[in-house]
Formats: sequence, C-alpha cells, structure tokens
Amino acid sequence: MMENSGTRYRSGISPLVVVVLSPDTKEETVSWLLRRMREKQQDGGAELLVNQLRSEGVVEEKENPNIFLVTASWQRLLSGAEDLGLFREFSDGSMRSFTCINSHNFKEFHGDGDGFLSMAECQYIIKHELETLRAKDETHVPGYTQAKLYPGKSIIRRLQSKRILIRMFPLHDQEELKRLSFKWYKKVKTSLQPLDDIRHYFGEGLALYFGFLEYFTMALMPLALIGLLYCQFDWENYDKYVFFAAFNLIWCTVILELWKRCSASLAYHWGTLSRKKVFEEPRPGFHGILGFNPVTGREEPLYPSTKRQLRVYLVSLPFVLLCLYLSLYVMMIYFQMEGWVLMLHDRGPTFWTNILLFIPGVIYAVVIEVLNVLYRYAAEFLTEWENHRLESSYQNHLVLKVLVFNFLNCFASLFYIAFIMQDLVLLRQNLATLLITSQIINQFMEAVLPYWLQRRCNKMTMERPLSEQVRLETDMSCYQGTFDDYLELFLLFGYVSLFSSVYPLAAVFVVLNNITEIYSDAFKMCNLFKRPFSDPAANIGIWQLAFEAMSVIAIVTNCTLIGMSPQVRAYFPNSEMHLMLWTVAVEHGLLAFKFFLAFLVPDVPKHIQIKLARLEFESMEALKKKKMFAVPRLRRVAYEEE
Amino acid sequence: MMENSGTRYRSGISPLVVVVLSPDTKEETVSWLLRRMREKQQDGGAELLVNQLRSEGVVEEKENPNIFLVTASWQRLLSGAEDLGLFREFSDGSMRSFTCINSHNFKEFHGDGDGFLSMAECQYIIKHELETLRAKDETHVPGYTQAKLYPGKSIIRRLQSKRILIRMFPLHDQEELKRLSFKWYKKVKTSLQPLDDIRHYFGEGLALYFGFLEYFTMALMPLALIGLLYCQFDWENYDKYVFFAAFNLIWCTVILELWKRCSASLAYHWGTLSRKKVFEEPRPGFHGILGFNPVTGREEPLYPSTKRQLRVYLVSLPFVLLCLYLSLYVMMIYFQMEGWVLMLHDRGPTFWTNILLFIPGVIYAVVIEVLNVLYRYAAEFLTEWENHRLESSYQNHLVLKVLVFNFLNCFASLFYIAFIMQDLVLLRQNLATLLITSQIINQFMEAVLPYWLQRRCNKMTMERPLSEQVRLETDMSCYQGTFDDYLELFLLFGYVSLFSSVYPLAAVFVVLNNITEIYSDAFKMCNLFKRPFSDPAANIGIWQLAFEAMSVIAIVTNCTLIGMSPQVRAYFPNSEMHLMLWTVAVEHGLLAFKFFLAFLVPDVPKHIQIKLARLEFESMEALKKKKMFAVPRLRRVAYEEE
Repeated sequence: MMENSGTRYRSGISPLVVVVLSPDTKEETVSWLLRRMREKQQDGGAELLVNQLRSEGVVEEKENPNIFLVTASWQRLLSGAEDLGLFREFSDGSMRSFTCINSHNFKEFHGDGDGFLSMAECQYIIKHELETLRAKDETHVPGYTQAKLYPGKSIIRRLQSKRILIRMFPLHDQEELKRLSFKWYKKVKTSLQPLDDIRHYFGEGLALYFGFLEYFTMALMPLALIGLLYCQFDWENYDKYVFFAAFNLIWCTVILELWKRCSASLAYHWGTLSRKKVFEEPRPGFHGILGFNPVTGREEPLYPSTKRQLRVYLVSLPFVLLCLYLSLYVMMIYFQMEGWVLMLHDRGPTFWTNILLFIPGVIYAVVIEVLNVLYRYAAEFLTEWENHRLESSYQNHLVLKVLVFNFLNCFASLFYIAFIMQDLVLLRQNLATLLITSQIINQFMEAVLPYWLQRRCNKMTMERPLSEQVRLETDMSCYQGTFDDYLELFLLFGYVSLFSSVYPLAAVFVVLNNITEIYSDAFKMCNLFKRPFSDPAANIGIWQLAFEAMSVIAIVTNCTLIGMSPQVRAYFPNSEMHLMLWTVAVEHGLLAFKFFLAFLVPDVPKHIQIKLARLEFESMEALKKKKMFAVPRLRRVAYEEE
Repeated sequence: MMENSGTRYRSGISPLVVVVLSPDTKEETVSWLLRRMREKQQDGGAELLVNQLRSEGVVEEKENPNIFLVTASWQRLLSGAEDLGLFREFSDGSMRSFTCINSHNFKEFHGDGDGFLSMAECQYIIKHELETLRAKDETHVPGYTQAKLYPGKSIIRRLQSKRILIRMFPLHDQEELKRLSFKWYKKVKTSLQPLDDIRHYFGEGLALYFGFLEYFTMALMPLALIGLLYCQFDWENYDKYVFFAAFNLIWCTVILELWKRCSASLAYHWGTLSRKKVFEEPRPGFHGILGFNPVTGREEPLYPSTKRQLRVYLVSLPFVLLCLYLSLYVMMIYFQMEGWVLMLHDRGPTFWTNILLFIPGVIYAVVIEVLNVLYRYAAEFLTEWENHRLESSYQNHLVLKVLVFNFLNCFASLFYIAFIMQDLVLLRQNLATLLITSQIINQFMEAVLPYWLQRRCNKMTMERPLSEQVRLETDMSCYQGTFDDYLELFLLFGYVSLFSSVYPLAAVFVVLNNITEIYSDAFKMCNLFKRPFSDPAANIGIWQLAFEAMSVIAIVTNCTLIGMSPQVRAYFPNSEMHLMLWTVAVEHGLLAFKFFLAFLVPDVPKHIQIKLARLEFESMEALKKKKMFAVPRLRRVAYEEE
C-alpha cells in the first residue's frame, strides 16, 4: 500500500513554493519579509531559504518582479515534519508520528533523510511554516501603516488580507507529473487509479476525492447491470419497479457504511487517521476586537460567538428559507406554464404548439441554473459576513447552505411529480431529461473545454527554463477545492438513489459519466491548474454526512414509491388506509434498521483498530515505566507562558 | 463545584479494602498470595500492606479465618493515582492528570500529600493494583494445580474464577457515612442532593446515577404541573390532549440534549471527562485458547470474535426474537381473555362477572413479572455463554437484550390498545393501572422492605470494634450496580414520554415516585449494602442511547396520537388519506429536526470545550518546545518488549 511507487523528491535546495507579492510592494516591506522568513527559528523566524525569481532571457516590462522561490534545508524540513506530527511507516510496520531523534527507525529513512519526504509534504511543511511565522514587536507591516500587526499575529495572513501577498502556491514537478499522468489517465486501462501516487503528488484530500469517485462508480456497477437487464428484457413497464426500489434502499445504506471503512483504511495507510489536527490559524478575512484567546492565551482579534449566531439564525437562516421558497415558487410557475401549454396543444395541435411544448422546460432549466449561480454568490457573501474564525467552520456553513438549496432546486420538481401529481411516466421523462442534460453540460465543461484550452496554451509538460515555468504556473488558474466535484457527485447520487427505480437506466448514465469524470478531472488537475497544497484529510468530512442524509431520504422515497406501485396496491384492494399504514410501518422499520446498522458496523476495520489500540497501549506502558513524563513538562511550559 | 466539602481520608495505614478467601484455602496458597501482594513493584509485586483480620473477643468456630485487610503507604497510593491517570484540580483551576513530580502544583495537595486522595479513590487504586498483580513464572496457583497461570495473567482474576477468592470489597467509613447520610436523606429538605459528596464517597458512576435521577425529576416538574392543571380545571376529556402531546414531543428531545451537557459538566469537574480509560482486564469468566494478544503482545487466552459473533447472531438473536414473540403471544391471549370476560359480563352482569373482569389483568401482570424474571436469567446465561472478553462488552450485550425485552413486555399492550384498537379510554385505564401497580411494588421493595430490614439488623452506623465491623460488612449483601435502577427510570420515562398525553397525571405519579426513590436509594446505599468500589464513569453510557431511542419512539407515538385526535380529524372531514399524509409528513419533519438538533447542540458546554482545547494546546506547545518527547521513549519501550 505504501508509496514505494513514484520517486521521492531529492536535493533540498530546488524551489518548492512560490510566493507572489503585489508588483508595487514597497522595497522596505520586501526586505523585512525576506529577513523574517530567513531568520533563525530561535529568533522567531521561519528559517527558510528564499530567492527572488530572476528572469533568464528577455525581461518584459509588465512582468511582476516580486516573485520569490521558497525552499528549506533537509534538516529544517524534517523538523517541520515533526512539528506537524506527520505519520509515517515505522520499522515494525505500524504508522507512527515522525520524530527526528528516532528517524532511522522509519522504514523509508535512509542516510541523512534526503528523499524521505515527498515534494508535496515538503511544500505542505513550508506552507505551514510560512503561515505560522508570527509578528514579534512589529505594530504594523513596514511600509504599510494601515496593515496592523500585534505579537503572535500570522504575518502571511495579514499580508494576504491586505492584498500585499497575492498568492502562494507550490510548484509542479514536471518529471513526476509526467509519470503520474501516464499512469493515471494517458492510457485507457481497466485497473484502478494509482491512488497512492495521487496522494503522493496532490495530498490526501484530493486522493480521497478520487478514491471516493472510483468507489462510487464501482458501487454503481450492480445497479447499472440491473438497469441494462431491465432495458434488454423489456421489463420497462413502470409496474415492475418494486424490486429495484427495494434493492436501491439496501444498496445506498450498505455502500456508505462500507465507504467509511474503506476511507479509514486509506487514511490509516496515509497516516492521517490518527494524526492530531494542528491548531488552525484564523481565516485571512476574520476580524474582531483585540482580546485574549481563551485557548492559547495569546492576544488576537476575538469575535463573540453569540454575535455570529445571531447573524446565522436571524439573517442567514431566513435568507436561505426565502431562497428555498423562491425556488419552489419558480417551480410552481413552471408547472402552471406547462399545464397551460399542454392545454393549448390539446385544443388544436399544430407544429407551433408542438415546439411550444418544450419551451417551459427550457425556461425552467435556465432559471434553475441562474438561481444556482446567484445563490452561490449570495451564500459565499453571507458566510463571509458571518465572520467565521476558522476556515473549517466557514466551509461547513457554506456547504450546508449550498447543499440545501441545490438539493431543493434540483429535486423539488421530481418530488412534486412523484408524490403530489403521482405521475410516474412524467417522473421518468423528467428524470431522464434532467440527468442527461446536466451530464451533457458537465462533459462539455469538464472534458471538451479543458482539452481545447490546453491545446491553446501549449504543452504544460514541455521542458522549459525554471523562470519561464514559474511564470507559466503563476498564470494558471487556481483549483478551487473539491467542493464542486463533491457537489456534482452528491446530486448524481441523489438521482440514482431517490428515483432510479422508475428509470433504471439512470445508473448506467451515471457510471458512464463517472468514468469520463475520472479522466477529465485527472486531466484538469495535471494540466490546467496550479498545483494545490496538499491537505491532510482523514475522511471526506461533511460530505459523508451529506451522503448519509441523502440515503435516509432515499429510504423514504423508495418506500413511498413501493407503496404507490400497482402490485403492492393489489394486496390492499379495498383500503388505502391499510396500505399507507403498512408503508409507513415498513419505512420506519427500515429507518430503525439503518441506524442500528450504522451503530453496529464499526467505522474502522478491526485490523486497524487493533493497530491503533496497540500504539495506545505501548504509549501507556511507556508512561508507566517512565513516570517523569509529558505532563510535568507540559506544566513547566504552561508556567513559562503565563 | 469541587470537593471542599467532606473531609479527606487521612493516615495511610488504616484498612481500606477487605479480601476474603475461601475458609478452606490451603496454607501455602495464602502465604504465596500475601508474599506477592507485599513484594516490591520492581519484583513484580503490588507493594501493598496486608494484615490478617484478628478477631477481638470471643472467636466463634464457624468464623472464616481468611479475611485480610489491605492498605498501602501514601507514596504507593500517590504513584498508583499517577498510574491510573487520575484527574485533579490544578493550581490554575484546570483539571489535569496527577503526577507525583508535579504534585505540589495541585490545589488540594498539602505537605506529603496525606489527605489528597479520598478514601474511595484510595480503594479504587488498591483494587486496580490488586487486579493488575500478574503471574511471573508460576504455572499454577500453589496448592491448586488445576488453577493454571501463565506469565502476565492477573492472579486475582484466576483466584476469583476458581472461587478461592470469594470477595473483595472496600470498607465503609463510619464517620463520613454518618455525615453524608445526614446531608443526603436524614432531613427533609428542598435543596439538591450533595452530588459532590456522593461522588466523594461512592465514586463517579453512582453519583452520575443520582445526578440523573435528580435531573429527570426536575425535568418532569413542568409536565407534572400541566398534568395537575389538567385535573384541576377538568380538561380531562380525551379530546384536548393535542397540546400535551406536542409539548411531550419537544420536552423529551430537549431534556436529553441538556442532560448530555449537564453530565459533561459534572464529569469535567470530577475529572473523568478527559481521563483515558485504563486497559481493561479480561472478565473472570472469560476463557479461550492461549495465544498472543495482538494489542499487548502478551500471551493470554484468545477467543475468536467470529465465533462469538456466530453465537450472538445464530443463537442469542433468534432466542431473543423467540422470547419477544412469546411475550406478544401472551399479550394476545390476555386480550382474548379480556374480550371473553367482557362478553360474559355483557350477557348477564352479576357480582361474580364483575369480579371476573379483573382476573385477566391480574393474570397478565403476574405472567409479565414471571416472564421478566425468567428472561433476565436467560439473558445473563446467554451473555455469559457468548464469552465476552471485557466486562464493558458483556454489560452492553446484557443491557441491550434486557432492554428490548422489557420494553416490549411493558409497552406492547399499550401500543396495541392505542394504535390497533384505537381505544383511548381503555389506554388511559391501562396506563394508570400499570404505572400505579408498578410503583406500589417498587415503593414496597425499595422503601418499606429496606427500612424493616435495617431495623432488624441493628444500626449500621453504631460504633463497634474494627474486626466486628469488618465481619458485619462481609455479611452485608452486594450492590449489584446501577442496572436495575436505570432500567426502572427507563420504563418510567417510557410511560411519561410515550403516552402521558392521554393521562397527564402520569408525570405527577412519576415525580412522586422519583422523590421517594431518591430517599430510598440513598438509604439503601448507606445502610444495606457493602460499599461498592467507585467507578470512574464519564457519562451514563449505554443508557443515554437507550433514552434517546425512547425519545425517538415517543415522537412517533405522540404524532400518531395527535393525528388520531378528534380536533385534528375535524380539519380533514372527508379524507382519511390526507390526514395520514399530513401526520406522516409532520412526524418525518420532527424526526429530521430532532437529529439536526442533536447534531447542532454541542455535547460539551462551550466553557469546558475551551478548557479542554487549552490543555491540548499547551501540550502541543510543550511538544514543539521539547522535541525529544513521548514518542522516542515509546519506541524504546516497544523495542524492550519485542
């Protein structure tokens, strides 16, 4: 499982991270920043190696001179790895947090440790060191009196929020990228993705996304197979979907439970499962009144959480509810328009009324897209305004807002057709239209467009001098994180799990879509974007919850669809009441069973639980044998700080 | 909050724990055991002080000579406290795990630490030291060749499983007990229970039980008040229960969420919230084939978990289902009997048929009790046979089995009456009968009987010589843990939350019951039982889950009751279908809201979260400053062990 594939990044002085300052940054600011970055750690610096990018060949007038290349010595990187609590494979096969003193007992540590860390890890370490470079006695950034500083404030964050530092990104490694892209998507293959290599190059967060994408595709295979059989053998009359709905029900619960275990397995082998989270720095945009942080005891801006909660509950929540109402209102208008057009067509069908039949659907689709885009901006603005201290909290609030709206916007019409109009034929048509349309748009945006873009801007993996390469990458667009990719998967999962029983081919389309998605996403990551910093994720985070919620809703819809089916109705010829009672009872039973199952199946596979317990046991034995341990030291430090 | 009340246990050499060996234990066994208990720790002993109990005055023939009093020096107890990771209040007001080196920075540590630990803590430490006294190279207990030992096996556990060691219990402290019982129940008072003192004397597990009992009683007050108003103003026609059901709904969700925070608060101040669990010893009854434990690496009996799971799923589960079926079958017979008797009475009502009307109910109640007792034995036998390695896992499986059966046995008839027969008048009668009957039995068993028993066996708090006191306590019965007490509360919670909307007085009865329960339980603990070993619980464990499950069921039943009410029906005069759809929709909304609420409300109050985060932050800062830390040491030890 471990990354014996892919070469390690060697020689500690080639550039790792690019820091781009605004072209009009003052001289004194630049020299102060460079000094602070280069200073020794005991003097409060970051002890990094920083060089200005010198253009070889002709220098164009408009070029930004303030581009800096950052790297560090191997010793510095290793001690940074220890600070971050990086987990690596130990000589006994377990995963342990790296320490310099014990470095030679780690499996892949040879000689002076050159090559022990991957390039992505080095870049992550440098990012961390830069972000935790703190102001000492400066009251403001030299040259910018309005850019206030106070002891302990992250310098980089202040520079970012004042737009002096424009961007900071890790460099691509042409050679490894070539190797990775060949393994990943350059040949059509039946084997799985090289997840370890992806993680090695892009970090755990992205590797987990691709892992999930692949897992999801695999999990869809049985559904797609059944869907194909349905088509093949002409089982397509809508009466026969009970079996499919029942299968759906179980399927969506089981695959999510299994994914948790899969993800824990991956995260354990990548060393992120039991790794402790580093204390997060406040977001660049976070503002407040200077006070003492109750956790760190440091002076920093504080923003009362009651104030934030007031903003969330009194402004954001009503706004979201209003948007949801608006979305439902638009849907009702669509249904009215459709009814009106249908009436017109029925009265006197001509060629023009035939065309008119499509108009409401098209308008509705366009309005949905427009609403989605508008809402996304509003959600970002609102969440920014809520002034969250941590990036993670900002992300959670944003995801929740966007998810709820997207869910309603995409599925409300399907729910309406299925359960209020109870028109399964229309449901099927609508589902097919929505799914296929969205896939065509996606394929175009994610496969055709990138391919065309890349053609235009030359081959990225071409050999060129460093300075040119750096400037090229500086101009590439930023990868905005896995948010949109997960959102797309979430909606696809919704189409399949909620309603695919009435349209079994849905799973087939989603599988096809996912396969091209893997290739196009891989292509995008390797060719179109700046390399993203790796992100030591242990799981897919809030998305697991979102998918679980969807699977609960899927149980409800599938049970209702089963209850509505003619076969089941045939068992209760005289009493609608009894049919409903039975449906509700079965649904409650299934929901209870689902929660019981989630409670019963351990989230971490047994063999990994044992390994984790073993580590804990050993540390407790160590505690017993050496009494003078962690805690007295902790005390002493606590005193030093008070 | 902290235990400044109640005196500390002083002077380290008064007896703490009593160890009773079988009267016919061989001489060589006794002397070997005493030697191992007294041996120094570096020689693998427990380093405790052990004395045989010498009777003062006349020695009766039948008296057991093998009673030993165990205690330890203060230094030994303090180092034991460090081994156990006991949390105490530090000089800066935070809770930290105790270490000898840093002892003087703990708030209540004075001089040489005499009086720092409470007697209950000392007893817990001694219990732990005795249980982790391990065999070295002995192959069997001297004198008993059939009592096999192997290196690392807990000696005490083997002696227990071979019935050589009959019992081991902590001694009461007459003086403190007198003070506690006076504060607790000897005066009728309006103030709350002295939870800190209870925790100080009996440990965290029991204190949490009494805390929960008190909290539950308080939480019932509003319900009881509304119930009284209902009675007073003759709102008692069954139509008006909608408001009550809606209130019930919210009430049961909110109080459980709040209790979690209360319990976390208590546990934080008692130092059990962030305390790490000590590795549990296998249960005395656990057996298996000698192998290497994958966690500890020690040789010990192993029992494959697949085999255990086969036993659970192929034997226990079907057995439980069979019992449930039997219970339902008995219920159906009861309803048939009742119907038959009613018919008889309606045909020709005489005095005799009038009496006959009560007979089915009485028979059913008796059969329920008999079934409960039989099932309890069966569940214990089955869970023992499942051969769980840890006591905690044994307890969880036992609780789950007993809970499910008790729930069905007690509530099935109510569910049947409410939702199948839809007879709210009968439901009300049945609920009242069940509740009042069970309370009368409980009050008798828990208040009258104990009082009478105590009268008989003299005053427990009388002054008497040590030896007599020890023998008296040896003969007292053992407290069987909080299981039955929690089970009773669980069933009461069920009566109130599920159906009290149709019988609002239920809450009043439960409040009255709980108040006497507090007094009778307190009396029991102080006068009737051996002192139990304290149990460092951080929460009420699996019972929290059980109560949450009950509150989910309560949402379902209350929504259904509301849907069945005449007022609500009046809104849907023509369509039963619509009424049902609305009921189901509202119920799903409420369930979703409940889960969302549980997700939103943090389980630990903010100010405690901050304190915990602060501790973690400090330990990470310490890590940063002193690099040569825990992990290299851990490594070294790991090597020593391999």
